[in-house]
Amino acid sequence: MTDSGKNAILIIIGNEVLSGKTVDKNGVFLTRELRALGVEVQRVVIIPDDIDLIAEEIRTSRGRFDLIFTCGGIGPTHDDVTLAGIALGLGKALIRHPKLIEMIEQHYPPDDLAAQGRLAEVPEGTELIFSEGIRFPVLCFESIYIFPGIPELLVSKFEAIKERFRDRPFYLTKIYLAEKEYVIAETLRDVLKDYPDLLLGSYPKLHHPEHSLMLTLESKDRAYLEAAGENLIGRIPKEKIVKIDRGKSAGDS
Amino acid sequence: MTDSGKNAILIIIGNEVLSGKTVDKNGVFLTRELRALGVEVQRVVIIPDDIDLIAEEIRTSRGRFDLIFTCGGIGPTHDDVTLAGIALGLGKALIRHPKLIEMIEQHYPPDDLAAQGRLAEVPEGTELIFSEGIRFPVLCFESIYIFPGIPELLVSKFEAIKERFRDRPFYLTKIYLAEKEYVIAETLRDVLKDYPDLLLGSYPKLHHPEHSLMLTLESKDRAYLEAAGENLIGRIPKEKIVKIDRGKSAGDS
Repeated sequence: MTDSGKNAILIIIGNEVLSGKTVDKNGVFLTRELRALGVEVQRVVIIPDDIDLIAEEIRTSRGRFDLIFTCGGIGPTHDDVTLAGIALGLGKALIRHPKLIEMIEQHYPPDDLAAQGRLAEVPEGTELIFSEGIRFPVLCFESIYIFPGIPELLVSKFEAIKERFRDRPFYLTKIYLAEKEYVIAETLRDVLKDYPDLLLGSYPKLHHPEHSLMLTLESKDRAYLEAAGENLIGRIPKEKIVKIDRGKSAGDS
Repeated sequence: MTDSGKNAILIIIGNEVLSGKTVDKNGVFLTRELRALGVEVQRVVIIPDDIDLIAEEIRTSRGRFDLIFTCGGIGPTHDDVTLAGIALGLGKALIRHPKLIEMIEQHYPPDDLAAQGRLAEVPEGTELIFSEGIRFPVLCFESIYIFPGIPELLVSKFEAIKERFRDRPFYLTKIYLAEKEYVIAETLRDVLKDYPDLLLGSYPKLHHPEHSLMLTLESKDRAYLEAAGENLIGRIPKEKIVKIDRGKSAGDS
């Protein structure tokens, strides 16, 4: 996992996920989308709606990852403490952003200004990213992108700004085998001696009618991937190879 | 999230999850099962197949959580480094367990003893938990339970030993409302002043035909939950309440 592109951490914030009431969709979506853009997600954490824990996560992630994405906890209720947690982690004050107050006053009826005012609270220095297709801007502080927890809103906000994250793509070859994993383990080690930078995965599949093992080979260097793939294929008895999907960009599939 | 039962961290280990090739099922399964058993999952992390990162995670989690579950990375190939990582994090040697060697020799044909031997490697002091319904034991070191990444195997192993994790159950009331979240935000704060130990969540739902908000109230103390529920219901106009699901154990649904 040491390719030279941008890396990222996803911080999923929500008691509802940790208590099993909701299955996280946002982390799954962002993981796939970022990979397709050439960004390597190196860590995903799911943490509670807790100011101190959010602050701790921001502190330990800043400087360690190129991109930090938070999902969830930016609504108006007591359990929406993500922005307070990020502010604490950054050592910044939580302020009401004049532009956000203006937008909220325009778009919402004045039922409860106290709760609506909370929607304008951001760490001092937060950037607002406006884009086509989204009514409210994405919040960003340095390389920290702050997304809502509601999947529909997260998707539309991410789609609106995703091109800024694009990096060189990953290329992926999949080799499906009718072979036991422990029989081929030594062969895989030998390939990695010749191609140490290859991202090589081995995944047994139980009860599949055709293959019992899937190998994944990945690299941002297409020629390197092709050479490593040929090297590996040359070491495996032909009758054990069920299917090969060669050299696609991870964003294609 | 400060109820007095047992808490847990789930450490999901696998490049295939971080690269978006596989959607994690194990974390979702364990989160729900543990909640139903009365155990509070406080943190989930997804990390790569990397010895040092696994060791770091074990070091920071030990002492901080009552139960630690790892999923994935215990097969025979180069990317199966979970046991080496746990050993490093514990400061223990990685040894070949005599009982595991004996079992592997009995169950597997002697195609490749080197790779099979790796399947017997565990941190020194690892306990083997045998149980009905599983052919191979669950590996355990103190409160660290080491599960495979293949979902079918993980499920059967967890089912075989889950009763040892059982704690007092959580009780859950769900209240569905036709109301905007920001309108009710202040009411929820007031309820929490009277019932500070209530686990109270507020989740807007877009485009639902009947309700626009779901409130979740939880406690291990059933009487406390009921009192808090009545207090909250008393503060909301009746015509805004769509449905109430009262006081079930989290394991019932």
